[in-house]
Amino acid sequence: MSGNSFGKLFTVTTFGESHGQALGAIVDGCPPGLPLTEADLQRDLDLRKPGTSRHTTQRREPDEVRILSGVFEGKTTGTPIGLLIENTDQRSKDYSKIKDQFRPAHADYTYMHKYGVRDYRGGGRSSARETAMRVAAGAIARKYLEHRLGIRIRGYLSQLGPITIDPVDWEQVHQNAFFCPDASRLQELEDYMDALRKEGNSVGARINVVADHVPPGLGEPIFDRLDADLAHALMSINAVKGVEIGAGFGCVTQKGTEHRDELTPEGFLSNNAGGVLGGISSGQPILASIALKPTSSLRLPGRSIDVNGEPVEVVTTGRHDPCVGIRATPIAEAMMALVLMDHYLRHRAQNGDVSIDTPDIEKGRHNS
Amino acid sequence: MSGNSFGKLFTVTTFGESHGQALGAIVDGCPPGLPLTEADLQRDLDLRKPGTSRHTTQRREPDEVRILSGVFEGKTTGTPIGLLIENTDQRSKDYSKIKDQFRPAHADYTYMHKYGVRDYRGGGRSSARETAMRVAAGAIARKYLEHRLGIRIRGYLSQLGPITIDPVDWEQVHQNAFFCPDASRLQELEDYMDALRKEGNSVGARINVVADHVPPGLGEPIFDRLDADLAHALMSINAVKGVEIGAGFGCVTQKGTEHRDELTPEGFLSNNAGGVLGGISSGQPILASIALKPTSSLRLPGRSIDVNGEPVEVVTTGRHDPCVGIRATPIAEAMMALVLMDHYLRHRAQNGDVSIDTPDIEKGRHNS
Amino acid sequence: MSGNSFGKLFTVTTFGESHGQALGAIVDGCPPGLPLTEADLQRDLDLRKPGTSRHTTQRREPDEVRILSGVFEGKTTGTPIGLLIENTDQRSKDYSKIKDQFRPAHADYTYMHKYGVRDYRGGGRSSARETAMRVAAGAIARKYLEHRLGIRIRGYLSQLGPITIDPVDWEQVHQNAFFCPDASRLQELEDYMDALRKEGNSVGARINVVADHVPPGLGEPIFDRLDADLAHALMSINAVKGVEIGAGFGCVTQKGTEHRDELTPEGFLSNNAGGVLGGISSGQPILASIALKPTSSLRLPGRSIDVNGEPVEVVTTGRHDPCVGIRATPIAEAMMALVLMDHYLRHRAQNGDVSIDTPDIEKGRHNS
Amino acid sequence: MSGNSFGKLFTVTTFGESHGQALGAIVDGCPPGLPLTEADLQRDLDLRKPGTSRHTTQRREPDEVRILSGVFEGKTTGTPIGLLIENTDQRSKDYSKIKDQFRPAHADYTYMHKYGVRDYRGGGRSSARETAMRVAAGAIARKYLEHRLGIRIRGYLSQLGPITIDPVDWEQVHQNAFFCPDASRLQELEDYMDALRKEGNSVGARINVVADHVPPGLGEPIFDRLDADLAHALMSINAVKGVEIGAGFGCVTQKGTEHRDELTPEGFLSNNAGGVLGGISSGQPILASIALKPTSSLRLPGRSIDVNGEPVEVVTTGRHDPCVGIRATPIAEAMMALVLMDHYLRHRAQNGDVSIDTPDIEKGRHNS
Repeated sequence: MSGNSFGKLFTVTTFGESHGQALGAIVDGCPPGLPLTEADLQRDLDLRKPGTSRHTTQRREPDEVRILSGVFEGKTTGTPIGLLIENTDQRSKDYSKIKDQFRPAHADYTYMHKYGVRDYRGGGRSSARETAMRVAAGAIARKYLEHRLGIRIRGYLSQLGPITIDPVDWEQVHQNAFFCPDASRLQELEDYMDALRKEGNSVGARINVVADHVPPGLGEPIFDRLDADLAHALMSINAVKGVEIGAGFGCVTQKGTEHRDELTPEGFLSNNAGGVLGGISSGQPILASIALKPTSSLRLPGRSIDVNGEPVEVVTTGRHDPCVGIRATPIAEAMMALVLMDHYLRHRAQNGDVSIDTPDIEKGRHNS
Repeated sequence: MSGNSFGKLFTVTTFGESHGQALGAIVDGCPPGLPLTEADLQRDLDLRKPGTSRHTTQRREPDEVRILSGVFEGKTTGTPIGLLIENTDQRSKDYSKIKDQFRPAHADYTYMHKYGVRDYRGGGRSSARETAMRVAAGAIARKYLEHRLGIRIRGYLSQLGPITIDPVDWEQVHQNAFFCPDASRLQELEDYMDALRKEGNSVGARINVVADHVPPGLGEPIFDRLDADLAHALMSINAVKGVEIGAGFGCVTQKGTEHRDELTPEGFLSNNAGGVLGGISSGQPILASIALKPTSSLRLPGRSIDVNGEPVEVVTTGRHDPCVGIRATPIAEAMMALVLMDHYLRHRAQNGDVSIDTPDIEKGRHNS
Repeated sequence: MSGNSFGKLFTVTTFGESHGQALGAIVDGCPPGLPLTEADLQRDLDLRKPGTSRHTTQRREPDEVRILSGVFEGKTTGTPIGLLIENTDQRSKDYSKIKDQFRPAHADYTYMHKYGVRDYRGGGRSSARETAMRVAAGAIARKYLEHRLGIRIRGYLSQLGPITIDPVDWEQVHQNAFFCPDASRLQELEDYMDALRKEGNSVGARINVVADHVPPGLGEPIFDRLDADLAHALMSINAVKGVEIGAGFGCVTQKGTEHRDELTPEGFLSNNAGGVLGGISSGQPILASIALKPTSSLRLPGRSIDVNGEPVEVVTTGRHDPCVGIRATPIAEAMMALVLMDHYLRHRAQNGDVSIDTPDIEKGRHNS
Repeated sequence: MSGNSFGKLFTVTTFGESHGQALGAIVDGCPPGLPLTEADLQRDLDLRKPGTSRHTTQRREPDEVRILSGVFEGKTTGTPIGLLIENTDQRSKDYSKIKDQFRPAHADYTYMHKYGVRDYRGGGRSSARETAMRVAAGAIARKYLEHRLGIRIRGYLSQLGPITIDPVDWEQVHQNAFFCPDASRLQELEDYMDALRKEGNSVGARINVVADHVPPGLGEPIFDRLDADLAHALMSINAVKGVEIGAGFGCVTQKGTEHRDELTPEGFLSNNAGGVLGGISSGQPILASIALKPTSSLRLPGRSIDVNGEPVEVVTTGRHDPCVGIRATPIAEAMMALVLMDHYLRHRAQNGDVSIDTPDIEKGRHNS
C-alpha cells in the first residue's frame, strides 16, 4: 500500500494538496452506533486552524468539514466515513519564482527527485495543511475512545525554543493560543515570539501528549508495539524530528534501579516507562514527547539551488508560523488517538475473549 | 495483520520464544538473483551474539541460522526465504518463582493482561532473544542494498550512561565489544562497566546509526515517511525509549536559520535534517539516534506484585547484560536496513519510471 | 484494514451510500507523470450509467466525477487522487415500508445483523451505485496500462438467461445497450427483455472479460496469484456468484492432454489456462468469465420477515434493471484493470531487475 | 506485502519448495487460550498426504509437523505459531532434462519469466506440496471455529471427469480415498481411474465445500466480502480454474423469483445465495464449489519449448496424481477455514459491540 493510509483496522486515508481543490479523507473501520456530527470534528479542527492569534500564520481557511457518508440518523453505520474540506483560500498567486527553486529544509528538492514532478503551489502535498484531515479523523477516534473506554488524550506545549514550561495546569492549556499549561509564562512566550518575528527567524518547540485511562493490554508485539506505532504516528507529523516515550532520552543516564517502575498493590510508583511495557499498555498514562523543528519558510535569505542546479537565494514571503510547534498540539493528540483506536480494535480482534479490565489495573492506572 | 511482521514489500515475519524450540522468520519479497549464503547472515548474528565479552550476558547460544527455502544454487529465487535457529540452550530451570511474579519494568505484567496467559520462561516472546531474527533478516536487506545501490549502514555506541563518545573512527567500532568508535575511551568504559556490575546495577545507552549513499527519493508521504518508518522500526527494538532523526531534540532550541540545511551546487552545507526532507531521502546520509533504557533484570531487590496482586520482592539472578544498549548496534543497523530495503522496493513500484540517480544528487549526497 | 480498499500498491478506497450526499474514492499509488483528465474517467462512467436504454433502470444520475487532487497541470503527481461524485438524485422518498423489511436476496438482513443499524435508503452502501467509483478508479488504471504497456481490457455479454452469444465481434460491443458482441442477436435480446419486463421478473447473465498484451510475469504466488486476485476482484462485484479463468468449470471433464496448452516456438496452441499458469501471466490473453444473479428487486411479491421477525410480503416498485448483468461489463473491466495495475506495480517492485518482455513471449502472447 | 501471506488478522505466511529442506509457516493472530497440539494438525495433514491409495501419487512424505512456538503448556499464547515440516523425501534425482524445459500447463515458463531464475526440482515453489502448510494452518483455524463458534467445515468430491456424484452422505466421505459421499459410486470411480492410469492421461474434478453454523454478520463489504475472499482463497489453490458460491453459474439462467431465497419466521426457504448476501454471511450454510484442472504431468508426450525457445517433446515420468482434485478436499476445507477465521476476527474488531447471534438467525441458519 502507498503511504497515505494510517492504521490497520481503524484506517485513515487522506488526499489533498495545500492549494488544490479540496482536502479529504476516508475513515474505514469505525464501529457502528457511535453518535457523530460534523460539530464533533469541527471543534478539534478549529483548534488547529491558522489565523487564531498573531503568532500563527494569517492565512485564513474556514476549514469546514463535511461528513459525506458512513453516518445515518446521527450515528455511524460501520461503513466508510467520507470527509471533505473544500479549499476556499486558493489565491491566484504568482508561483513563477518558487516553481523552479528548492526552498531549503522544505520537501521541494526531495519531491522533485522522487516523483519527477511536483505541485509547487504552497508546498502541494507536503504542506502541513494536510494535517487538517488527521485532526478531523482523529476526532472520530477520540470520541469513540472517550465514549466507550473513558480514554482522554491531552497535549500541551512543554518547550518553545529556550523556554521550558513545567508545571502542568490542564485548565490553562486551551485558554491561550500557545497551548501553554502555565499562565504565568504567557508574557514570556509572547515577548519571545514578538522578537522572533521582528528578527524574521523561527524556532523549534517540544509538545507533550498524555493519554489517561488507557486500559492495559493495547499494543501488538513485536513490531507493532504501542510505542513503536506511536513513534511512527508522531514522527509522521510535519517538522517532527524526535519522539520520546516516558523517560525518553533521559533513560540513557538512568540506572536500572532508578528507571524501573516498581509496582505495589496500590499501583506503580513511577512512570518512566510512559505507560508501555514490552510494547503493551500497562494501564498507566501514556506519555509521549515530540521535537518540532523551526519553520523553514523565512524572510531571511538562504542559499539553495534551482531545478537546473544553479545557485539561488531563497527568500520566503507571505503567511507563515514562526513556530510550527504551536499549532502541533491538536495534531499530536489526533495521531495518538488514531494509534490507540487502532490498537483497541486490534486487541479486540485477537483477544476479545480476554477481559482488558481487572481490579489491580484499575488501582494502578490512574496514579503517577 | 498481527504485529509480528515488518515491511510492506520486503516483509519479515518472525516467531519464537526465548526458551522455546526455535526462532524463525520468513522474508518475503526479496528480489531474485541476489547471491546469498548462510555465512552472510551469520556474520551479523555473531556480532549480536551474547557471551562475547565479560560485559554481556554469559548465556551462550551458537545462534546458527539455517536458510530453509528461497535460495537455489546460491542465489535468491524470489520465493520466500525461511530462516531457522534452533534453541540449544534450553536449560531445564526452575521457573516456579518467576512464574507468578511480575518483574518490574518487564513485560510480564502487560503480557498477562493482554493475553491472559504467558510463557514465563526467560521472558518468552518479549525477550530480546527475538532480535536475532531481525538481525538475520536485516543481513539479507543489507546485502541487497550494498550490492545493488552501494548503501552502507553502520552504527556505534555514542553514549553509555554518563560517558559520551564523540569523534567517530569507523575503523574502531568492530575492534571492541562496546561498538565504541573511539579507542581512547575503552578503558573508561571498561571501568564503568566493572563498577556497575559490582554494584549490581545497570545503565542506559545511546546508539547512533548512519546510512551512506542512500539515493534521494525513498520514503512514502505522508504517513509512511522514511523518518516515520525509521521511528517505528527503531522504537520496536526492545528497551528503546526515544528516537531522533538528524538534529533530533536539538532542533527545539535551534533557530530556523541555523536548522535549515542550505544547499549549493556542491551539495548540502549541513545535515540537521538527517538526510530526510518531507519524509523522503535527500541523498545525504540518514542519521538516527536511539535511547535504550537500563536493563531491568537486577540482583538488587525491587518491589512488585504477584499474579494475585500480593506484594513481592523481586531479585533477578542469572545471566544478564548490565547495559542492553551495548549489543543493540547490530539490531539497530538491521532495522534501518529493513526500512531502506522496503522503501527502495516501494519506490521502485510507484516511481519505477523516474530515475533515482541524478548528477546533482551525486554531488550532494556524500557530504554532510 | 477494513473492507473498502482494493489493491496493495495501486490502492483504491471508496465511500458512499446510494442515497447519501456523495460517492468518493482515493486512488493511492498511481505513478507520476500519467496524463489524466476528468474526461478519461467520464467515458467509462457513462458506459455504466443507468438510464441509457429502456432495458436498464430509469433512475438518472449524471455521475459527473471531479478529480480533487493528485493531478497537476494535466499529469498525475504521484500523490493520492481524490475522486468525488455528488449525488443529485436524492428524491425525498417515503422509506417507511422498506425501513423495517428485509427484502429477499438483498443485503438488508445481513447488514442489520452485522452492524445493528443500516442506511435503508436505496440499499445504502450495499447498492450497486457504489460501483461507479470502481469504474472511475479503474479508468485510471486502464489508461496507465494502455499508455505504458499496451494492455487492452474488453468485456462483453456472453449470455443473458437462456440466450448464449458466441462469435465475438468487438466492433459491435459498444454499438448497443447490451454490450452484445453479435449484432444478429440484438432483436432476440430485445424481445426477451421486453417479455421479462412485462412478466415483472428478472434473469441472470454471464459476462466475459479479456485482457490482451499482458506481459508474462504478473502475479504473486502463492496466495496472491493473478487468477486468485481476479477471482477476488470479480466476485466482489454486486450480484456475482461465480468466476472462471480460461476453461473454468469446463476443465472438470477435460482430459490432461486436452487441457494442457502446448507450446511451440510460434506460441501457445490453445488457451485453456486463460493466460495464467501457476498464478502468473503467461503472455497469452487473460480470460475471465463471471455469472451474475438475476435482480432481486421485483414487483412480483416475495415472502420475507421484518425486523421483528414477523412475516411480510415484499413488493419492490420503482426503477430497477431487470438484468443487472447488462451494465456489469464496464465494472468487470474496471476490476480487471485494477488487478493488473496492482500486479504490474508489485512485479516492478520485486522483479524490477528482470525484464518482463522477451522475444518468445512476444510471439506467443497474441495468439489463441 | 508479497504474495505468501493470507488473511489480515489471522495471517498465515508460508515458505518452502517441493524439494527444498523444509516447508514452514507462521500463523499470526491466533487468539490465546486455544488448546492445541501437533496431533490436531496431523489429522488434517494425513488426509491430504500422498500415497494413501493407488489413485494418488506414490511419493511418500511422512509430513510430520512440528509446532515451534506460540503454544505453551498445551495452549496458544497469542504469539505467532511457527510450523515446520522437514522434507525427508529429497531423492537425488537427475534434473538435467527438466531443468531446461518448460512443461506444458506447468508454471515453469511463467516462473522463469517472472523471476529470471527458478528452482526446477519438482516444481519448486509452484508444487502443490506447498499446500501441506495451508492444511496445517487451516487446522488451527478449524479448531478455533469449532471450539468457539460450533462452525463445521466439510468438503467432498462432487464430480470426477464425467462422473457426477449427487446425494451427500457425510458419513461416507472419509471412508474412501476419493472423499466421495456416495458409497454406491466407488466402484465406478475406481474403474474410471484405473482406465485413466492405463491410458496415461488425467482428468479434472469438482469439489464442494460447506460450512455449517456460521453466524450471520461475517464479511467486510465492499471489496472484502465473504464470497470475494472465499473466491480469492479457493482460486489460489493449485489447479483451480473456477469458483462458485451457492447457485454459481446456475444463476445465469435463473429467473429472479426462482433465485431469491425467500425468508419466513422459520428460516430461509432455499439457499441459492450459498449463505452470503451482500458479501455478509446470512446464517445459512456457506456453499462453495471449485473446478480443478486435470494433472499436467503426463507420460503422453506434449509439445513445448526449452529455455532457448527451441521445440522439445515433454514426457513426464514418475509419481503423479492422475486427478489432483482427489486430494484437494482437505485443502479447500482449510482455505475456507482460514477465510472464516479471519472474518470472524475482523468482525469482532469492528463490531465487537454487536451481538452476532440473534434468535431469528438461530432458527434460520440450519435449514436448506
